[in-house]
Amino acid sequence: MRASIIGVGLIGGSIGLAARERLGAEVTGWDPSPAAVETACARGALDRGAGSLEAAVADAQVVFVAAPVGALAETVERVLRAIPPDCVVTDVGSTKRSVVAAVADPRFVGGHPLAGAETAGVEHARADLFQDAVWYLTPTETTTGTLFERLHRLLRELGAKPTAIDAATHDHMLAAVSHLPHVVANVLVAQAARALEDESEQLPATGPSFRDATRVAGANSAIWTDIYLANRDALIERIDDATRRLGEFRALLSAADADGVTAWNDAAREDRRRLLEAQLAGGTVHELRASVPNEPGVVARLALELGRAGVNITDMALYPAPNQAEGVVALWIAGDEPAERALALIAEQGFPVARA
Amino acid sequence: MRASIIGVGLIGGSIGLAARERLGAEVTGWDPSPAAVETACARGALDRGAGSLEAAVADAQVVFVAAPVGALAETVERVLRAIPPDCVVTDVGSTKRSVVAAVADPRFVGGHPLAGAETAGVEHARADLFQDAVWYLTPTETTTGTLFERLHRLLRELGAKPTAIDAATHDHMLAAVSHLPHVVANVLVAQAARALEDESEQLPATGPSFRDATRVAGANSAIWTDIYLANRDALIERIDDATRRLGEFRALLSAADADGVTAWNDAAREDRRRLLEAQLAGGTVHELRASVPNEPGVVARLALELGRAGVNITDMALYPAPNQAEGVVALWIAGDEPAERALALIAEQGFPVARA
Repeated sequence: MRASIIGVGLIGGSIGLAARERLGAEVTGWDPSPAAVETACARGALDRGAGSLEAAVADAQVVFVAAPVGALAETVERVLRAIPPDCVVTDVGSTKRSVVAAVADPRFVGGHPLAGAETAGVEHARADLFQDAVWYLTPTETTTGTLFERLHRLLRELGAKPTAIDAATHDHMLAAVSHLPHVVANVLVAQAARALEDESEQLPATGPSFRDATRVAGANSAIWTDIYLANRDALIERIDDATRRLGEFRALLSAADADGVTAWNDAAREDRRRLLEAQLAGGTVHELRASVPNEPGVVARLALELGRAGVNITDMALYPAPNQAEGVVALWIAGDEPAERALALIAEQGFPVARA
Repeated sequence: MRASIIGVGLIGGSIGLAARERLGAEVTGWDPSPAAVETACARGALDRGAGSLEAAVADAQVVFVAAPVGALAETVERVLRAIPPDCVVTDVGSTKRSVVAAVADPRFVGGHPLAGAETAGVEHARADLFQDAVWYLTPTETTTGTLFERLHRLLRELGAKPTAIDAATHDHMLAAVSHLPHVVANVLVAQAARALEDESEQLPATGPSFRDATRVAGANSAIWTDIYLANRDALIERIDDATRRLGEFRALLSAADADGVTAWNDAAREDRRRLLEAQLAGGTVHELRASVPNEPGVVARLALELGRAGVNITDMALYPAPNQAEGVVALWIAGDEPAERALALIAEQGFPVARA
């Protein structure tokens, strides 16, 4: 198997590592940055770097294009002009409609692995980045069946779960669960930073829930401006939906409708639980909260203890007290039995613990 | 010093523990739940429970009312009718205007400690819950000076940082940094749960950034319905502001204004940095991201290593890979020198690490 990778950052580099280790593939790569190619070779993500995009793909059987969303269509077209007829080309961009609409070639299949958005750079590449990760593929009516099948099989061998999806559905879904939350985080920090300007020079004090809610605020513009623009109609729909929902809650507030506010809030609690559960085979997600001294060693020991007992922590949050010496650790545990076990183990350590 | 506590949950119980341990106070308490009073006595948060609210406060020098926001004004009035003339009464509610407007008595000072919102129940009470915590006080022009001074001094002795603030400013600030983020989290889960209903039966796959953004969705209605309603005009202002900001971003998207989107996103990054820094004396907050195997032991060892080296982790987030076996840990470290030290220490452990 001869694979080519155009763009060797975190995703491209991880594909290279996995293809070499798991498929025994011969991997050639190219990147606008010669330093990235050098690092990728040194890390074993590439067998060799090529002098040009065209040289990198000249005799490939599969090409992965890991370029920024804004440059995808043009880069994929360049690749298509340079490859042999029996070669499949895919990309890893976070939005799919624009590239799928721009590239009509039957050898191209759009793709998007749900992995690795939190870091950048080939230094963070890992051969198992895609293990059990959903990897969306967006074939069209004109996609060559044998090439799609080859790509699908390759992704399985890389450890991923290839999942065919319509490009439009993909983009609408990502607008809801990723792009809108990023926009909203930006709005939250902007309004908070300015909320008190009329009354005081001081910035307001914020707590852990504000930090959680705004953690993705101001994510890397080099990536996100492209994503926002490529998916702008779907994102505008989500913005309009969110605006409508804010308006509905505003109306409940205006009417001082306590029952309505409670029902609205309880529905959100249920929605979050269902969304978390949909991610997991492990059953109902239980939220536990334990009061602990906020020494690094304590959370460490708790995590070790639960890990040793085979309890899988789905999600975790620390809420240090203002003095940083005490705090609450929230743990989300999937499955009734593991949650019971976690409760018992934490109590055995002498920490007050309860279901949230 | 004779102190009374009306409502012995997390906050009331912690006040009792701290008043007994740090002030040597004699603490009497009452709660609508006899079981809570019993637990509070067993935990040492009260010297004794009283048979009624009136009996609990009859010879008090200071009374803390820790009742739900919706019951505050009525409970405070009952207390004021039962106390001696030279007794100061305060509360711990999350919104301040309604109770301050309803209670004109010069012996009452509104209060709100920024502590302990993450758990409930006297089982989680701690004598040091308020150590170094901001404790807002909302005196008015009619507040008796000597009583305010007594309360202020008591709070200092409990370990807190009493901070006088206008009730309206307090409520506007909390609307921006706490109440609106809760509303927005609810909106995010509601739209995501329904976004795909037209196209599929399936709930969308969500990632760690969605979990972070919606962690407070559906917070306890028994507390939050009151908070939303008591602060509804300030919250409506924030909703309108957020709606306006969503509209501005929508306009940038509609116009496909890449420079505008980038500037908007970069401004949010800067706003979040300033808000985080405002919390801390430690200087600029640096965000580091390290790739680690997602075994509990690894994050534990990292935290222990940094703790041993005196590096204070301001905030922390885990982003497990879909396979739960690998992941990225994000660390926010305050101060240039500690951040450098953390980078070096993490690299020494053999993990790829970089500034975000």
